[in-house]
Amino acid sequence: MTETHSPGLPAGLRAAGVAAGIRAPDLPDLALLVAEEPARAAAVYTRCLLQGAHVKVCRDHLLRSGGRVRALLVNAGNANCSTGEEGLEDNRRVCAALAESLGCPPEQVLFLSTGVIGARLPVERVLQSLPRLVEQASCGEGTGLDAFSRAILTTDTVPKVAARDAGDGRVVGVAKGSGMIHPDMATMFGFLLTDAAPPEDAGDLLRSVCDASFHRLTVDGDTSPNDTVLLLGTGRATVGEEALEEALTGVAVDLSRAIARDGEGATRLVTVRVLGAPDRPAAVRVGRTIATSPLVKTAVSGRDPNWRRILAAAGRAGVPFDPERARVWIGPSVVYEAGRPRPEEEAAAHQHMAEQDEVELGIDLAAGSAEARVWTCDLTDRYVHINADYRT
Amino acid sequence: MTETHSPGLPAGLRAAGVAAGIRAPDLPDLALLVAEEPARAAAVYTRCLLQGAHVKVCRDHLLRSGGRVRALLVNAGNANCSTGEEGLEDNRRVCAALAESLGCPPEQVLFLSTGVIGARLPVERVLQSLPRLVEQASCGEGTGLDAFSRAILTTDTVPKVAARDAGDGRVVGVAKGSGMIHPDMATMFGFLLTDAAPPEDAGDLLRSVCDASFHRLTVDGDTSPNDTVLLLGTGRATVGEEALEEALTGVAVDLSRAIARDGEGATRLVTVRVLGAPDRPAAVRVGRTIATSPLVKTAVSGRDPNWRRILAAAGRAGVPFDPERARVWIGPSVVYEAGRPRPEEEAAAHQHMAEQDEVELGIDLAAGSAEARVWTCDLTDRYVHINADYRT
Repeated sequence: MTETHSPGLPAGLRAAGVAAGIRAPDLPDLALLVAEEPARAAAVYTRCLLQGAHVKVCRDHLLRSGGRVRALLVNAGNANCSTGEEGLEDNRRVCAALAESLGCPPEQVLFLSTGVIGARLPVERVLQSLPRLVEQASCGEGTGLDAFSRAILTTDTVPKVAARDAGDGRVVGVAKGSGMIHPDMATMFGFLLTDAAPPEDAGDLLRSVCDASFHRLTVDGDTSPNDTVLLLGTGRATVGEEALEEALTGVAVDLSRAIARDGEGATRLVTVRVLGAPDRPAAVRVGRTIATSPLVKTAVSGRDPNWRRILAAAGRAGVPFDPERARVWIGPSVVYEAGRPRPEEEAAAHQHMAEQDEVELGIDLAAGSAEARVWTCDLTDRYVHINADYRT
Repeated sequence: MTETHSPGLPAGLRAAGVAAGIRAPDLPDLALLVAEEPARAAAVYTRCLLQGAHVKVCRDHLLRSGGRVRALLVNAGNANCSTGEEGLEDNRRVCAALAESLGCPPEQVLFLSTGVIGARLPVERVLQSLPRLVEQASCGEGTGLDAFSRAILTTDTVPKVAARDAGDGRVVGVAKGSGMIHPDMATMFGFLLTDAAPPEDAGDLLRSVCDASFHRLTVDGDTSPNDTVLLLGTGRATVGEEALEEALTGVAVDLSRAIARDGEGATRLVTVRVLGAPDRPAAVRVGRTIATSPLVKTAVSGRDPNWRRILAAAGRAGVPFDPERARVWIGPSVVYEAGRPRPEEEAAAHQHMAEQDEVELGIDLAAGSAEARVWTCDLTDRYVHINADYRT
C-alpha cells in the first residue's frame, strides 16, 4: 500500500481497541474512534435487503445529527443481524451509554457490528468495556489506530490500513474484510478518516469514491447485510475538493486491493483491466463478470493462462463487442488477438501467474474508449474448505 | 429420471456413435442422428458473444432449410471455436459430405461441436468416420440412442437420456454437460426428439420449454460459446400442442436435473424453490442468485443448514421483499421465519442435507404469488481441483 506518512491518525481523532469477550476470549473485538469535535460524516451501506441493526440506526443517527459524528464504535464477532426490534434497542442502548460518557447527543455516536448473524449482541460486555476504551483512546503515531485496526477483524489474516497526503491534510483508511463477502462473519467495513473538511455533499463524494474502489472489489459476488463504508472529516486542515477526492480514492483503492489480497484461501491478488468499452459502466460490468467467474478464478489458482475463460466470461456480461476484434492479455503477454489464440505467448503468461503475487488479466473489447479496473483474488480449495467446513 | 418407456428413439429416427480419434484414442466422440424424412427443427443457442463455428452455420442452415433437418452430427473433444473462417469452412465441408451420402441438401445437415476451444477441428478424421456412422445408425431399442448419448460426452460421468409419453407419440431427450459450464470443454447440449410434429412456431415452443428447464439450470454461472438445445420432430404421431409442450418440458427438466446432479465435483443435486415472488421472472432471478452463490453452494457441500447465506443471497437479487416477513426452509425444516432464526430446526435440516442426495432449499418472499424452481449442485474442492489443475 502506498503510504506517504506512517499511519498515525488525522488531527483531532483518537482511537483504541480492546478485548471485550464478544468474538473469543482475549481477542481484540471492540474498537473506538473519537473525534474531539463533531466531525462531518457520510456513509455508504450494503445494498442487500437483509441488513444488520446498525445499518438502520446509523441511517437514523446521521440524519438526525445532520451528518455529525463524535464517536464510532465497532464490534467484531457478532453482526447484530436478524435480531429484530431487540437488536435495534441493543444498538441504541450502547450508543446512549457512550454518548453520555463523551457528553454528546446519542445520534452523534455510530455503533457498527460485524460477525455471526442471528445471535443477540452481548450488550453487557460491550457496556463494561466502554470506560476502558474511552480511557485508552489515543492519537499517538500508530498505537491507537493500530489497536483499532486489529479489533475490527474477523476472519482477516492481516489488518488493513492505508494513508495518503491531501493538500495540507491527510487521509487515513482502515478496513476489514477477508477478501470475500462472508455473510456469517458479515463482513466488510471501510473507514476513511481525514483532517480535511468533507464538502456539504459528502455523501455524493463518498459514493463517487466507492464507485471507483470498494464497488470494484469482488471475491465471490456475495454481499453481506452489514457492509458499511464511512467517511469522517475533522475539518482541521484546508484541502481542495479535488485533492481530497483523489486522496480518498487512492486510499480506498489501496484498501480494496488489500481486502482482495487477503481473500479467504487466496494466493493471488487479481487486477482485471478492461479497455475499449462503450462506456464506464459497461467496462465495470465486463470487469465484474470476469472477476466473479469461478472458471477464471480457478484458472488463476492453477496458474493457467486461460484466455478462453476470460473471453467467454466477457461474452456473457451483456455488453456488445466483437470477439473477433478483441484482445486478451495476461501480465505482459497478449494471448488472444484478432479472433485467434497466440499459443506462443502462453509460456510467458504462465510465468507471470506463477511468479507474481499480483496477476493482471486484461481485455480490450475494441468497442469504445472507456476503461475500468476491478480487483479480486483466485479461487482455491481453501476457500471451499473454509466455507464448507464451518458449521453454524 | 422419469422414464415411461425404455429409451428407444421416436419413430423415424436412427442414431449411432463411434470413436473417431478426436477426443482421445478409442473414446466414442462422433455421434449421428438421421431422420428418414426431413424433420421439423428449432434451436436455442448460447447467449455468449463468443460463439463456436457451429452456432453460425446452424443458424444459417436452419434458415435456408426452412427449419428442416435430415441429419444431426455431433463431435466431442473439439469445440471448433475461435477458429476463424477456417472453422466455418471445416463445419460446412463436413455438412456437405454427410449431405451427399444421405442424398439431401447440405442445409438439412447440422454439425455441432463440443470440447476444447481454439484448436482446428481434425476434419479428415470426421470425414473418414462418416461412412461407418451412417451404416451403423439404428433405431433398435436402446442401441443407437445409447451409442449417440455416449459419443457426445466430454467430462460427464454418465450419459443423460430422458423420455416421456406425449399423446400417441413420445419425447426422448439426450443431453451432455458436466453439470457445470465449462468453456474449455464447451459444454451443454440438449436434444429433444419426438415423433410429434412441432408447430410452425417451433422456435417459440422451444424457448418456452427452455425457460422452464435448461434456463433454470446453473452450476457456476459461467456460460459457454457452444451451448445448443435442438428440438427435432418427425411428425409421425399426432400430438396436441399442450401435451407436446408438457412432455418436452418434463423431459427437459429431467435432463437439467441430470446435468446438475452430474456437476463437476458435485455430491448433491440442489433444488432451489422460490415462493411468494412478485412475478415469475422475479422468482427465477431470486432462485438463480441463491443457486449461483458460492457461499450457499459450499454450505451444501458442508451439510450446513445455513439460512443466513440463503437469505443474504436472496437479498441481493434485486427483487423487493421484506426479510422480516420471509420464510426459509431446508428440506422439511423451516429454519427462519418472521425475522428470526429457528435454531431448534437446524438438526433436522442438517440431517436432510447429510442423508438425501437431493437437497431442497426454499424461500417464501411473502411478496406475491409467483414461484419457480432452479436446479444446481454443491460446490466442493473437487470442482476447484478439476478447474485449477487443468492446464491448457
